[in-house]
Amino acid sequence: MAHSLDSLLKPRTVAVIGASRTRGTIGAEIFHNLIANGFTGAVYPVNPGATSVQGVRAYPDLRAVPDAVDLAVIVVPAARVPAVIDDCVAAGVKAVLIITAGFAETGDAGRAIQDAMLAKVRAAGMRMVGPNCLGLLNADPAVALDATFAPTWPPHGNVAFSSQSGAVGLAILDYAKELGIGIHQFVSIGNKADVSGNDLIEYWGADPQVQVVLLYLESFGNPARFLATCQRVARTKPIVAVKSGRTGAGARAASSHTGSLAGSEVAVEALITQAGVIRTDTIEELFDVAMVLANQPVPHGNRVALLTNAGGPGIMAADACESHGLIVPELSAATTAALREFLPPEASVKNPVDMIASATPAAYERALPLLLADPGVDAVIVLFVPPVGTEAAAVAAAIQRGGAGATKPVLTSFMGMHGVPAALSSLREGRFPSYAFPEAAAIALARVVRYGRWLARGAGAVPELAVDAAAARAAIGDHHGWLPPDATRAVLAAYGIAQPSTQLATSADAAAAAADAVGYPVAIKLASATITHKTDVGGVILDVADAAAVRQAFADIHARLAAIGRAAEMAGVTVQPMVPRGVELFVGATRTPGFGPLIGFGIGGVAVELWKDVGFRVHPLTDADARDLVDGVRAQALLDGFRGGPVADRAALQDAILRVDRLMGDLGAVLELDLNPIVTRGPGQGVIAIDARIRVA
Amino acid sequence: MAHSLDSLLKPRTVAVIGASRTRGTIGAEIFHNLIANGFTGAVYPVNPGATSVQGVRAYPDLRAVPDAVDLAVIVVPAARVPAVIDDCVAAGVKAVLIITAGFAETGDAGRAIQDAMLAKVRAAGMRMVGPNCLGLLNADPAVALDATFAPTWPPHGNVAFSSQSGAVGLAILDYAKELGIGIHQFVSIGNKADVSGNDLIEYWGADPQVQVVLLYLESFGNPARFLATCQRVARTKPIVAVKSGRTGAGARAASSHTGSLAGSEVAVEALITQAGVIRTDTIEELFDVAMVLANQPVPHGNRVALLTNAGGPGIMAADACESHGLIVPELSAATTAALREFLPPEASVKNPVDMIASATPAAYERALPLLLADPGVDAVIVLFVPPVGTEAAAVAAAIQRGGAGATKPVLTSFMGMHGVPAALSSLREGRFPSYAFPEAAAIALARVVRYGRWLARGAGAVPELAVDAAAARAAIGDHHGWLPPDATRAVLAAYGIAQPSTQLATSADAAAAAADAVGYPVAIKLASATITHKTDVGGVILDVADAAAVRQAFADIHARLAAIGRAAEMAGVTVQPMVPRGVELFVGATRTPGFGPLIGFGIGGVAVELWKDVGFRVHPLTDADARDLVDGVRAQALLDGFRGGPVADRAALQDAILRVDRLMGDLGAVLELDLNPIVTRGPGQGVIAIDARIRVA
Repeated sequence: MAHSLDSLLKPRTVAVIGASRTRGTIGAEIFHNLIANGFTGAVYPVNPGATSVQGVRAYPDLRAVPDAVDLAVIVVPAARVPAVIDDCVAAGVKAVLIITAGFAETGDAGRAIQDAMLAKVRAAGMRMVGPNCLGLLNADPAVALDATFAPTWPPHGNVAFSSQSGAVGLAILDYAKELGIGIHQFVSIGNKADVSGNDLIEYWGADPQVQVVLLYLESFGNPARFLATCQRVARTKPIVAVKSGRTGAGARAASSHTGSLAGSEVAVEALITQAGVIRTDTIEELFDVAMVLANQPVPHGNRVALLTNAGGPGIMAADACESHGLIVPELSAATTAALREFLPPEASVKNPVDMIASATPAAYERALPLLLADPGVDAVIVLFVPPVGTEAAAVAAAIQRGGAGATKPVLTSFMGMHGVPAALSSLREGRFPSYAFPEAAAIALARVVRYGRWLARGAGAVPELAVDAAAARAAIGDHHGWLPPDATRAVLAAYGIAQPSTQLATSADAAAAAADAVGYPVAIKLASATITHKTDVGGVILDVADAAAVRQAFADIHARLAAIGRAAEMAGVTVQPMVPRGVELFVGATRTPGFGPLIGFGIGGVAVELWKDVGFRVHPLTDADARDLVDGVRAQALLDGFRGGPVADRAALQDAILRVDRLMGDLGAVLELDLNPIVTRGPGQGVIAIDARIRVA
Repeated sequence: MAHSLDSLLKPRTVAVIGASRTRGTIGAEIFHNLIANGFTGAVYPVNPGATSVQGVRAYPDLRAVPDAVDLAVIVVPAARVPAVIDDCVAAGVKAVLIITAGFAETGDAGRAIQDAMLAKVRAAGMRMVGPNCLGLLNADPAVALDATFAPTWPPHGNVAFSSQSGAVGLAILDYAKELGIGIHQFVSIGNKADVSGNDLIEYWGADPQVQVVLLYLESFGNPARFLATCQRVARTKPIVAVKSGRTGAGARAASSHTGSLAGSEVAVEALITQAGVIRTDTIEELFDVAMVLANQPVPHGNRVALLTNAGGPGIMAADACESHGLIVPELSAATTAALREFLPPEASVKNPVDMIASATPAAYERALPLLLADPGVDAVIVLFVPPVGTEAAAVAAAIQRGGAGATKPVLTSFMGMHGVPAALSSLREGRFPSYAFPEAAAIALARVVRYGRWLARGAGAVPELAVDAAAARAAIGDHHGWLPPDATRAVLAAYGIAQPSTQLATSADAAAAAADAVGYPVAIKLASATITHKTDVGGVILDVADAAAVRQAFADIHARLAAIGRAAEMAGVTVQPMVPRGVELFVGATRTPGFGPLIGFGIGGVAVELWKDVGFRVHPLTDADARDLVDGVRAQALLDGFRGGPVADRAALQDAILRVDRLMGDLGAVLELDLNPIVTRGPGQGVIAIDARIRVA
């Protein structure tokens, strides 16, 4: 066996420890499924109290089984599982599947028992799925292994599925069967003590029988490995995931911009986006997307032609397309002329193409290839409402012929259930996914288009940057909390992040002297290790014109702090030259437990908090990730010379993002970093971090 | 008959003009449906070429029918329909249903023929549905009228449905039957030459057999009547609508903030929101919501308890609840104690309550009333995944008993199809809606919660305001285009909208003199009838400190315009005192073809364009609508004293919104109005429109 997971998914011999004669128990149902669904190897029931189980000769214990066992399925009560593991090790079993619950999910005692079992399994070179799971199956007819207690045996196909919830797994198998989606392998990973979702993504990435990988996730054991694995596998094989389970805001106080924005859900979203994984909100949408990916090519763009025999569904589909980022473009003159040749005058040859209720199967068959051939079309959604006198099945067959051999995806929606089931099965044979309503088709296609864009974008690379980590570490020294201005400056300088010249002044006179040296006008800002939102306390005074005004500004800031009883927190002021007007942006970083550094970019100033126009990525960022962040800001207009303002230096912004990412990767002591605002004044002019703060451990 | 629509929906005698012997034609199918589905009156086939149709004695024309005809169903070719209408008038028919297509939807010629028929129908005091429709039905067993050519006869219930698309209507009837949703009446309104959706909403509003009104809309014939009718009916009877068909940006250039934001889709969304109509994105969601409303009470709040026998679905449901505005709160100590009494130690008695896979039907029956009794819970979603050994049907029956008599809504999701159909039918009898996935239940509940909030909010009223429309009209005079500053000031003053004192100055010296009079510092702003975005051309200079600086500002603005060749467009400058710092907001108004005035409110300044944090309502606004606009801004923090800034005077903002609404209602000449920014500096301190512009016809 080439891969250690083969012993789990392609065993030749399976022992069921705890196989039961009493149908309706888990130990009976899992044994029944192994026997009933055509397993091509041999199954051995192990049950000390029975001479046979469901008609098969039983064995009192594992030692009594006459052959070497590849896979042991364990369904005995939790208290007996550790002893069974010992038996498995002794018998040289290659892999175990522990269905039984009552381990890590119940608390520390259970976790200790699970860890002890895992240690034995690993020492013996075995693999383990579970505990606390529904089981696994391999629907490949060459294996036909159903080691689950689910009542459903799905049709075989090219979709692989891993579920972190057994209950959701049950629903998934039923739903896949109902939709006619072929499953290659399914694994309920339970507590994932040994085999994880990441293991399976890698395994399925290498299996030519798998075309699509589906995941139901509740948590990430190793986010960094998830990112790296998916980024690689998703280049050639789409991965679609539902991730549920938000962990709440966590214990950290929302003490900064980045911190308050970057809940773990933000990290999850960033991770999934970077990984190239298609995320859906629901299981239904997961399968809606899987139906496209398992059967149709990934489109090269977002331009959709709609073909219908009724106006309403066409409008619904067009609306859904446009509200999910797809375009319903005008068709080429050649296409409209060719359609006009055979469609009645009442038909609309604009997009949506409405062939009206009298449309025959032949019209569908003729129109579909014309739309597919239009160079301005990347995908086609075919809609059909069965009017009186037209057979859905005939239309389905016509679509099948008309779409045969297409290199662009074709999706269909046969609205109204009447007569559709027969048509659907014909469409399935032709591998054209069909949806009960046009919107579902549009939404699924939109998600696949986004994946196509990720593929086209290329993988990007983590760039080489000239930085001086040693200098930054020296500047941090044994500081803790918010770094003082000079240390902050030194750290940023070591990472090549430009800042205006800044002088710390601890008295009004010193501030005036510093301003004289810098040149007027200047910005006077509170320096404090404890007060982080300077503006809120009146601690920022801009455009200060002369020495007298500088002294006044120093006094004003002190007076404002005194008025709120915080004068003692004033370490002085910083004096900076005024930076000419530019676009104010935000680059920030924080650490999310389990996910490592999280890098944010968005519109700076108060917009960060008011409109949260900020995107996130997890470390390490590629240049493509940095570009996505800059291009992903909603207020793009602000970067493009908004109302006479400067155009942003996008390259310099991307560079600053990557430098912050590198800084967070290098300097584990840095807990949090905000550059707000970081200003850009024009292409080629670079960026300058006007205000910066860094918190260290 | 009490209501003119009764002759359409409760006829005693129906003639089918064009009834056909050839099954598979529309004329045959509609006649077949009338006969086959148990119509309690009499049906007369009219067909000059047949002595009988489908076994029923036929008549050569309407005159030959021996009884008075309430409803004539017309399925003859389009060219013959006008003559048939004449026959109907002559025969004293009370109502006609024109199935035949080929009228207004085909162009001007068809519209002329349709208009002529409508005139005859109206003159005769008849009502008319269609032309170009699927037909109508009344599933009430006392009538059992199926005057459609749809193959589906839905179960009877308390839901009424109007569809503007026949094709969508076909799908709707099928889907309703599949879900077991009882339909009371259904009308495909086609071209709605006479009977409109609004007529039906009124009719169903008065019908005690109707509990929920569903609409599939593609356009509004009379938005103002839709608004008024729905606002009244929705107080006692929920209305749920899918509105599709965006009409594109339209021909108007996006010449202003309001104009560029206020596409007709914005007007549609505003209208539906104000009307108290629950809008869904898809037909599936329409029915998901209808299942709640047809069977369960409207909840009084958004706090949801989740009851499950598996963790995964509970997490999925909690996620869906929270991302759709519902809260999954902690349960009271009494509830958790009562649950703990009978649930196993591994169960979680936090919300979601996870009774784990061993949960029996009895556990569901005992837990559900406890959750319903918790004073911190407004609704319950019950989740069930059939594990081995537990019967879904038994759990369904237990839920039915446990939820009997509840005054809070109970929704269910039985995940996995296996064994669910039987359980579902039991739940339906108990009137507990059930969904295939938990998210659908959460989303449907969230929409119903929002409707409940609309009900609780009260209708509000259009307030009496002291305004001087005559003075405003005089100020507008025969201006056209953008009003000059003095006229703008006069119009706003007449409507009680405060502005800073503003002086127009046409020279640098005049500006300096005006500034001397006003007091320093001042704001100097370009005055121009043609340049609307003053900031973009450098036409706004703030904080001008003395007379010399005022002269310089005048010269600077002139020079900037000269540099772009637009000096001729400078009418001078306005001189205003600087207004102290406050929160900058936006009130705007425009007119959308067909919808009348559209009033917008949001965060002012450039945020209007960059983040579009602006809401809209259509004229006339009630005080409740104005409050909703103020409360609906996303950046609420800015109104609540953001980072030490002032708290907004919400009452004054609402008043300003209502005054602008009244202005737009009174002054038809005003095409567009922007107050940006309108500034608020504290509760009780009112608002002041710093910059204003008005465009007149």
